Amino acid sequence: MSQLANSLKPPYYAVIFSSTLKENIKGYEEMGDLMIELAQKQEGFLGIESAMNEIGITVSYWQDLDSIKKWKVVSEHRIAQEKGYSEWYKTFIVRIAKVEREYEFGF
Amino acid sequence: MSQLANSLKPPYYAVIFSSTLKENIKGYEEMGDLMIELAQKQEGFLGIESAMNEIGITVSYWQDLDSIKKWKVVSEHRIAQEKGYSEWYKTFIVRIAKVEREYEFGF
Repeated sequence: MSQLANSLKPPYYAVIFSSTLKENIKGYEEMGDLMIELAQKQEGFLGIESAMNEIGITVSYWQDLDSIKKWKVVSEHRIAQEKGYSEWYKTFIVRIAKVEREYEFGF
Repeated sequence: MSQLANSLKPPYYAVIFSSTLKENIKGYEEMGDLMIELAQKQEGFLGIESAMNEIGITVSYWQDLDSIKKWKVVSEHRIAQEKGYSEWYKTFIVRIAKVEREYEFGF
């Protein structure tokens, strides 16, 4: 997770997930790692970037809207989402955005 | 910066800035704070979210592409960009994306 998702070719889609967490987040990190592992196996998955301090931002990149829709309903991911609602997240925003262009430096 | 940019109404634009930093980043945080302050005064600015650990992700939100273009060439911002290239960033990716929809929880 210390890498950037470089070399992607627009247009493609980004899911920008921004969140604040509750005080007690038992099991959160393990589930996060598991979800990243699982997302990488989905069709249309292009990459993921994640950072966290006061807030968390995870951006996953996808080939098209259909891939995002399918990932949303993968059963293990649904379970993670439910735990997120009930146990981990104080607030979150999910944004679906079409990446129209990008510029890279240093690769 | 511990807040999420909630209550925005799609469509709008996101500038997703992902980066890794060099070892010595003297002046980086101060410049970051200054740029956030300055961005907030620009026409079309809607909000900003930022998180950093191994990588940094800053997502700023804008009304339209024209606002983003104007912000890019604000002179103080140009100076910050040049310092970024020469002193602070090891790698970065800037993505311009159109937010088509969003979902909020907990506000």
